[in-house]
Amino acid sequence: MTWQVYLSGEIHTDWREQIERGASEAGLDVEFTAPVTDHSASDDAGVSILGAEDKPFWKDHLGAGVNAIRTRTLIEQADVVVVRFGEQYRQWNAAFDAGMASALGKPLVTLHPEQHDHALKEVDRAALAVARDPHQVVGILEYVMR
Amino acid sequence: MTWQVYLSGEIHTDWREQIERGASEAGLDVEFTAPVTDHSASDDAGVSILGAEDKPFWKDHLGAGVNAIRTRTLIEQADVVVVRFGEQYRQWNAAFDAGMASALGKPLVTLHPEQHDHALKEVDRAALAVARDPHQVVGILEYVMR
Amino acid sequence: MTWQVYLSGEIHTDWREQIERGASEAGLDVEFTAPVTDHSASDDAGVSILGAEDKPFWKDHLGAGVNAIRTRTLIEQADVVVVRFGEQYRQWNAAFDAGMASALGKPLVTLHPEQHDHALKEVDRAALAVARDPHQVVGILEYVMR
Amino acid sequence: MTWQVYLSGEIHTDWREQIERGASEAGLDVEFTAPVTDHSASDDAGVSILGAEDKPFWKDHLGAGVNAIRTRTLIEQADVVVVRFGEQYRQWNAAFDAGMASALGKPLVTLHPEQHDHALKEVDRAALAVARDPHQVVGILEYVMR
Amino acid sequence: MTWQVYLSGEIHTDWREQIERGASEAGLDVEFTAPVTDHSASDDAGVSILGAEDKPFWKDHLGAGVNAIRTRTLIEQADVVVVRFGEQYRQWNAAFDAGMASALGKPLVTLHPEQHDHALKEVDRAALAVARDPHQVVGILEYVMR
Amino acid sequence: MTWQVYLSGEIHTDWREQIERGASEAGLDVEFTAPVTDHSASDDAGVSILGAEDKPFWKDHLGAGVNAIRTRTLIEQADVVVVRFGEQYRQWNAAFDAGMASALGKPLVTLHPEQHDHALKEVDRAALAVARDPHQVVGILEYVMR
Amino acid sequence: MTWQVYLSGEIHTDWREQIERGASEAGLDVEFTAPVTDHSASDDAGVSILGAEDKPFWKDHLGAGVNAIRTRTLIEQADVVVVRFGEQYRQWNAAFDAGMASALGKPLVTLHPEQHDHALKEVDRAALAVARDPHQVVGILEYVMR
Amino acid sequence: MTWQVYLSGEIHTDWREQIERGASEAGLDVEFTAPVTDHSASDDAGVSILGAEDKPFWKDHLGAGVNAIRTRTLIEQADVVVVRFGEQYRQWNAAFDAGMASALGKPLVTLHPEQHDHALKEVDRAALAVARDPHQVVGILEYVMR
Repeated sequence: MTWQVYLSGEIHTDWREQIERGASEAGLDVEFTAPVTDHSASDDAGVSILGAEDKPFWKDHLGAGVNAIRTRTLIEQADVVVVRFGEQYRQWNAAFDAGMASALGKPLVTLHPEQHDHALKEVDRAALAVARDPHQVVGILEYVMR
Repeated sequence: MTWQVYLSGEIHTDWREQIERGASEAGLDVEFTAPVTDHSASDDAGVSILGAEDKPFWKDHLGAGVNAIRTRTLIEQADVVVVRFGEQYRQWNAAFDAGMASALGKPLVTLHPEQHDHALKEVDRAALAVARDPHQVVGILEYVMR
Repeated sequence: MTWQVYLSGEIHTDWREQIERGASEAGLDVEFTAPVTDHSASDDAGVSILGAEDKPFWKDHLGAGVNAIRTRTLIEQADVVVVRFGEQYRQWNAAFDAGMASALGKPLVTLHPEQHDHALKEVDRAALAVARDPHQVVGILEYVMR
Repeated sequence: MTWQVYLSGEIHTDWREQIERGASEAGLDVEFTAPVTDHSASDDAGVSILGAEDKPFWKDHLGAGVNAIRTRTLIEQADVVVVRFGEQYRQWNAAFDAGMASALGKPLVTLHPEQHDHALKEVDRAALAVARDPHQVVGILEYVMR
Repeated sequence: MTWQVYLSGEIHTDWREQIERGASEAGLDVEFTAPVTDHSASDDAGVSILGAEDKPFWKDHLGAGVNAIRTRTLIEQADVVVVRFGEQYRQWNAAFDAGMASALGKPLVTLHPEQHDHALKEVDRAALAVARDPHQVVGILEYVMR
Repeated sequence: MTWQVYLSGEIHTDWREQIERGASEAGLDVEFTAPVTDHSASDDAGVSILGAEDKPFWKDHLGAGVNAIRTRTLIEQADVVVVRFGEQYRQWNAAFDAGMASALGKPLVTLHPEQHDHALKEVDRAALAVARDPHQVVGILEYVMR
Repeated sequence: MTWQVYLSGEIHTDWREQIERGASEAGLDVEFTAPVTDHSASDDAGVSILGAEDKPFWKDHLGAGVNAIRTRTLIEQADVVVVRFGEQYRQWNAAFDAGMASALGKPLVTLHPEQHDHALKEVDRAALAVARDPHQVVGILEYVMR
Repeated sequence: MTWQVYLSGEIHTDWREQIERGASEAGLDVEFTAPVTDHSASDDAGVSILGAEDKPFWKDHLGAGVNAIRTRTLIEQADVVVVRFGEQYRQWNAAFDAGMASALGKPLVTLHPEQHDHALKEVDRAALAVARDPHQVVGILEYVMR
């Protein structure tokens, strides 16, 4: 069986590529999915397709709607959801994805440095594993798919 | 019918009291529920009942488990979930609750200042209303329950 | 047991009052619920609470969000959903409610004159009864609750 | 992954063909599904297979049943549901499909001219995007599947 | 807690009254529900409310729709479903109710004489108890509610 | 897409073969599934594998359990469920399957002669089509899969 | 709100009474439910109501069926499920209840001495708290219901 | 169709291999899945990937989390779940898996010697077959897949 793994969260470092490379090297039969990680394309997804909006709120609203078509579909289809919390930004969408995944009964893995442990305790409690770096995520996938 | 409204999120200002007072003055038949909002009681919920842990991670883990017994039960039973994002802290648990509420099909109302609009665009897109202050939340409840 | 009956659809005639009066005269233990039927209050539900919008589209969007908090909650809790299609307007929201009720497994009763039979054939096919006037709806409730 | 996209609603213009052509030109891996769009075949689906009925109501009832075997199955299997509202007819079945898709948690895209915005506000509020022409629908699919 | 017990099936003997009397004598906190057991009222439920039909098939169809509003609602709300198969008639509706109850996860009790054991083996396999007379059903309720 | 069609019910005539032949001649992409239709193999399914039982009731119980592993799995996976009621036997398992299919939201087609119309009215009301012979079932499949 | 707490598992010590007494002293608004804890009544629940069986396997089968009517209903209705594992017996039914509760999304609390930690690791992982004595369970209830 | 069969429980004898060999010899189209059956790899799954823990409880907790990513995913995807209870150990995880499978509506087969019949009566009652040796499990699969 091919496992579907959704990689949610932080889009400014290459953690997805590290996981994909590691999984590839380990010969795992995984199909990785993710949100659109091109930041400006993602921000403009609504207005570039559906037309301009004056107010930033509605511009964001349009964009978030178009992105949600992708993200909800892929989270629904995932076997495992990995959520990465990085150093910067508030990343509320990552925590929101984690809440959705949890309510849908998807096995959840979080990935973040120790400095966020206290702030992420509710999210981590809903996860089946808390990883510190992409190699650990690969290790988990390697183990569960052996 | 009595409506059950869960008030999730920020615990350092009196927004819950403002909503409860407004609802009371409007004579609404609402039962408000919430997480335990006593910060240190909440942080110590695990170790004070189940015994001390050396590592902060496991202390948080125990506490988050005990708190989740309360929060998941009350979110499941809520008719409406209101999530407040404040000025401080990362409040990932608030976004996590919003994700759970959304996946469970609960009508979601967010409450936050405009400065967080861009960061909260995915959460707001899943909400049926974005309020800026507690009075607007009362106004919404008053309207939907009339 | 008290039955919850949601009365969806057309808001310009007194069909809801006729059903409520009939049920009352028959001594039925029913709690009727409905959308807000004050047309202008409903149209303004968003902007009057959350603030003005320039574009009619966003004004409608805000209002529809606030109204949906009410309607989705009440449809979820209903034992029976009655949907009335009248002579005027396109009433897409009524058909939308019928689709939701059907997917949620709620017993559905439609109420409309014969002239709309062909246009409503898909909706009627999902209904357990097609009534022509409010007295028939009362008759159905009287029978199923005897 | 191949996306399943159900194209519901108006059957008198070539909007489906435009979307299919656009998706094909963009090289998207989509399987489009739809109701039977041959109007008279659809109207006669019941009586031509199951035998004649005198009353138009029952003729429609038979036909709507047979068509529902197709439409419900395809909506259940769709990843995305696009609903088109045109200039003519009341198109209650389109709004009904939108209500079903929404209750089933399917990402919903509506497609209609601005003149119907007010009448469709409840349906649009449940959608993740409101498109004005088939090209925008193709643009959305192209973005979410990139 | 009050238990809701739905009594489905055969309507020509007084088995429901026997169970209700036994439960009452045992002081059980049960609310019994059932289909309309007045045979001719049930058969005429559609046409007497919604108007005459020439063909027996459509007369039955109307009636079955109105009755289903009652039976589906009550089965959905039941804690336990008891289905009685008697000596006469084919009683397909009883077996249909049993199939619905089973798919909904409702604890199922069947009640029938041994002569039907082979014909009812699939239904009995889905039941948590097979009773031979109303006293045994009362015994079961008395035990599970003690 | 390949449609999965489960053929439930009567096992003493060749109605399944007629449908399969008709679907094959029409070039339909259907995978038909069914219970084990070898009557004695089905009756002995439990004891021949798991060991003899003295009482007929427990022999049937064992057999019905083993058969249910097959039938429930295939009904769950079916896109459409066709249920045939024949001239003989009580066929409660057919009606039970119809009840399960209905509660699971599967499009249901019944197949039976007119003489059973009154006895099957509740089952037929839950069906999207009532066919009189296997050719009509093929006609329905041909239409819905075109 | 009154919380429903189901107390599953070991029936040979007075742990249920300790929890009930503690909750009562703390003034908690809890309704405790449990399986029938009279061991011989539970073992004989089937044969004493439905008639004797020669083989112990079928005697147990009848009894387990009757008991399941009670236990499944109460677990479904519980807000919280507490499962106690004691010193003696294999208590597979306790672990089975924990698995059901977990799949149903019920907050789970386990109660057992440390000596069973390794053997119960999978069950404990699915729990939101692992308590060592009844006082801790009372402490948890007191906290989550404050 | 390929059947997915999850083999849960005891990991110290070659019962899985016997079933797989038998299914292979019978030419069955089955994909067997299972937990990781290398005992020490399973026990160390957490700490070997995520880092050491001092307390055995947390070591087990980490390991059980990682293993649950595998087991829950595979149980969710299984068509049939077979649970083996052996002579040794308490095997609470096997009973827990059975409870999950049951609540998820998966056809359940138990496999154990008669000596455990009384202790396993609740689990066996939820099963559709109780097998005594691997050959019987193969016999069941052969029958249900014929």
